[in-house]
Amino acid sequence: MPSRDPMEPATARNLSGAGLTEAALRSFAHGDSERFNQIAQSLVRHLHAFISEVQLTEEEWAKGVEFLTRTGHITTDQRQEFILLSDVLGASMLVIGINNQRPAGATESTVFGPFFVANSPRFALGDNIANGAPGEPCYMEGYVRSLSGEAVPNARVEVWQADDEGHYDVQVAGLPAPRGRGHLFTDNDGRYAFWSVRPSAYPIPEDGPVGDLLAAANRSPMRPAHVHFMITAPGYQTLVTHVFAEGDPYLDSDAVFGVKSSLITPFARHEAGAAPDGSQVNTPYYTMRYDFTLAPTQ
Amino acid sequence: MPSRDPMEPATARNLSGAGLTEAALRSFAHGDSERFNQIAQSLVRHLHAFISEVQLTEEEWAKGVEFLTRTGHITTDQRQEFILLSDVLGASMLVIGINNQRPAGATESTVFGPFFVANSPRFALGDNIANGAPGEPCYMEGYVRSLSGEAVPNARVEVWQADDEGHYDVQVAGLPAPRGRGHLFTDNDGRYAFWSVRPSAYPIPEDGPVGDLLAAANRSPMRPAHVHFMITAPGYQTLVTHVFAEGDPYLDSDAVFGVKSSLITPFARHEAGAAPDGSQVNTPYYTMRYDFTLAPTQ
Repeated sequence: MPSRDPMEPATARNLSGAGLTEAALRSFAHGDSERFNQIAQSLVRHLHAFISEVQLTEEEWAKGVEFLTRTGHITTDQRQEFILLSDVLGASMLVIGINNQRPAGATESTVFGPFFVANSPRFALGDNIANGAPGEPCYMEGYVRSLSGEAVPNARVEVWQADDEGHYDVQVAGLPAPRGRGHLFTDNDGRYAFWSVRPSAYPIPEDGPVGDLLAAANRSPMRPAHVHFMITAPGYQTLVTHVFAEGDPYLDSDAVFGVKSSLITPFARHEAGAAPDGSQVNTPYYTMRYDFTLAPTQ
Repeated sequence: MPSRDPMEPATARNLSGAGLTEAALRSFAHGDSERFNQIAQSLVRHLHAFISEVQLTEEEWAKGVEFLTRTGHITTDQRQEFILLSDVLGASMLVIGINNQRPAGATESTVFGPFFVANSPRFALGDNIANGAPGEPCYMEGYVRSLSGEAVPNARVEVWQADDEGHYDVQVAGLPAPRGRGHLFTDNDGRYAFWSVRPSAYPIPEDGPVGDLLAAANRSPMRPAHVHFMITAPGYQTLVTHVFAEGDPYLDSDAVFGVKSSLITPFARHEAGAAPDGSQVNTPYYTMRYDFTLAPTQ
């Protein structure tokens, strides 16, 4: 630990190597909170260790500055390139793992992603949330339960997904209303059900610095097909997760490291005819069934 | 070292903790160059170690994303907030130390800073480069020499500095031409000389995220008074450095860790009268004398 003598100057002269690192650590010894100091000092220690370990050149440093600048400049309310960067570096899943250590039996979490939008439209059980999103019809249903198997009624089930062209609604210019996005509430049995479209695998945005990073690494930008769920209910921990489509070719190469086996389920294909909810479907359609188990708040 | 079997999937399922870090490292094992792989893997290793060490919460992660976003959004052609961030974390001086290990006797380097502008005006020996910058007149002179003490004639001496209000020309809106900025060439004796104004200590920009970071750390934003020099001559390594003013109260608390004792020299005050170059000065003025020693190219 660096010295915390407040009389000591924050920096000093003739700093290099380990002495420079110690001075930078000392400069974050007197912040507003111990937690701030801890995070800033750990960041400085690892940043300096990284630079020293690779013996970073001045040209590489300048390229890093330029990369971060481009990442900032492409980020808007609709596109969060720094989250994308965190995702492809595995940092997002690491943070999720640290903060979502749930009891055995509870449904696992995965990345939130950059495409959530607050204040989504509300639907009733059985409604169709696609609202014109292109894709084959898909009926999704299941139960929300506690660890002991009891129904969780009136749980808010928030859903968002890509269509079968691989786009979220916020990626399509000029849409008048949300598509493939909405929320509904479980019934007294803890049941949810809605129509939407079958999601498709898609590449994360490739036209920015994160796309350039993946290209330089010869990494695939693809994510396996999935539907985002966020489930909230009083007395339970909020669950942010996906349901992944069984058989997707990208399940073992998700660009953001987000796949959990327990979150994979079949999207079963059916010929046109009577659907599980009694409706008649004139085209082939799919069904997906997934039950969520919530952990109690601590 | 991660496995480099190209048949192995880039990522996998059910990743967390050390296994997730290994998968992220593997994803950067097949890039365009070994150097790219080395840098990306070291970055991933230290980023993950930082997150694990502090057990970063999801709220703190989101604050970090927001901080980087603001840093990107405030960065323009005139203001490089990511360089400022690198500077206050001690990262810039660390990179400079790694890349400028010169033989004993050569003048030391320090930070480049965010205020250099290419294509500065050319001046003749003895000219005044202030061009209206506010401040007391200051005559600056010295020699550029080799390690063995030989004159380096025709060396390009690039100069930029803050005025006595603590501003570089690029920080002052609406200026028609550069102020306190220019370049000249040494004569056959390796001598340079010019008039300008005495520089003042100044705070680094405080109105952005880096200013917020320093405030949260209860750190001073001040830099001691200095003049930037960049000296280039065929056969010699380019020297990027400052000359600091002896007696400045901030020499031991430079916000960017840039002070070297060997770069400190008096800015001597004189009453109005005959200056060293024979001119008559009607107000009190200052003189600064500093000799630079260049290392040969390797």
